[in-house]
Amino acid sequence: MNLVLHNFFRSSASVRVRAALNLKGLAYEHVSYVLRKKEHRAEAFLELNPQGLVPALQLEDGTILNQSLAIIDYLDGQHPEPALLPESALDRAWVRGLAHAVSCDIHPLNNLRVLQYLDQQLGVSEEGVAEWFRHWVDEGFASLEKQLASDARRGRFCYGDTPGLADICLFAQVANNRRFDVDMSPYPTLQAIHDHCLELPAIVDALPEHHPHAN
Amino acid sequence: MNLVLHNFFRSSASVRVRAALNLKGLAYEHVSYVLRKKEHRAEAFLELNPQGLVPALQLEDGTILNQSLAIIDYLDGQHPEPALLPESALDRAWVRGLAHAVSCDIHPLNNLRVLQYLDQQLGVSEEGVAEWFRHWVDEGFASLEKQLASDARRGRFCYGDTPGLADICLFAQVANNRRFDVDMSPYPTLQAIHDHCLELPAIVDALPEHHPHAN
Repeated sequence: MNLVLHNFFRSSASVRVRAALNLKGLAYEHVSYVLRKKEHRAEAFLELNPQGLVPALQLEDGTILNQSLAIIDYLDGQHPEPALLPESALDRAWVRGLAHAVSCDIHPLNNLRVLQYLDQQLGVSEEGVAEWFRHWVDEGFASLEKQLASDARRGRFCYGDTPGLADICLFAQVANNRRFDVDMSPYPTLQAIHDHCLELPAIVDALPEHHPHAN
Repeated sequence: MNLVLHNFFRSSASVRVRAALNLKGLAYEHVSYVLRKKEHRAEAFLELNPQGLVPALQLEDGTILNQSLAIIDYLDGQHPEPALLPESALDRAWVRGLAHAVSCDIHPLNNLRVLQYLDQQLGVSEEGVAEWFRHWVDEGFASLEKQLASDARRGRFCYGDTPGLADICLFAQVANNRRFDVDMSPYPTLQAIHDHCLELPAIVDALPEHHPHAN
């Protein structure tokens, strides 16, 4: 059996795992779930993955892994080249800290399910939802810009001249931002890293619009 | 210089790192930041940690690490005993997946800064904020209960009979829930794991009420 990625073309966490798989040169099949139709809450998927969230990676033996950063960590251990995390323990902690600033402090607040709750349960206006989205992106990006702009380890990417875990998270977040018109001009360092990602087909192919089931 | 933990007694991510430091038997000093007073946004702290979030761990040489799970990962690598993550790559991914279900899918939504936004920017009522809090806990805990109840690797803790990363995250979340009266009866497996944590002084000492600067 091949690797199977259970995912949704537009999901930002799915973009991360697709980019990692592509960078590692691993072949995989897609099973797609349309989140607005709650296909990821269907019984068949919940049996595979009780977390009921995409992405989930099904390994050759059927084992299901979930949580995008746990999946990427696993892939990086099993397929060390190209490395997505630095060798040195301190630098690994640095890169993980950058990645988690996106994956824990920005993205969870701007998930579809959260925006739907704001809209449907709290009656927040469309503009209010957009402000919410941009608020958490701006909070997180302002910190990341400050951290990265002055860091000597930065190169074309967050850490050195090859893309890694933090770049993947940043890139996926910028892709996600497009729907809400986030102004990137206060974040020239992040913009430059993003633009360097755009030069790499492995990362570009992970974008929603290049997904085989995009619509 | 000793290890210094920049933290706040009530912060759930701070509880995680305190529990990890205690389990590893590492001595550390506290610098406390009262979040409601925005002390973590003061210039002096932002210079140390531009993310402006607690916890941040200052190492003996002055290096600052941030993001609780990145810190714990680092500590686990530098001080391997007792291990907070399993040896096997697959089991590590499993435990990380459980931990991230809390650290990415529950806790970021229920942070003080988010609850304040709901209250102050969106005018959500006190009861509405409490419902929001419980909603995301229930979403996450229902999945975790399902995952853990049927998993053969579970023992007294999420993975085997010694506490690890997932237990720390779960424990810190349950402590956080106390302010919002979350009903744990649908989650007997999670409750049992939590209760086993309560038997360990290293973990209990991480609770807000045992913090030297608690008030």
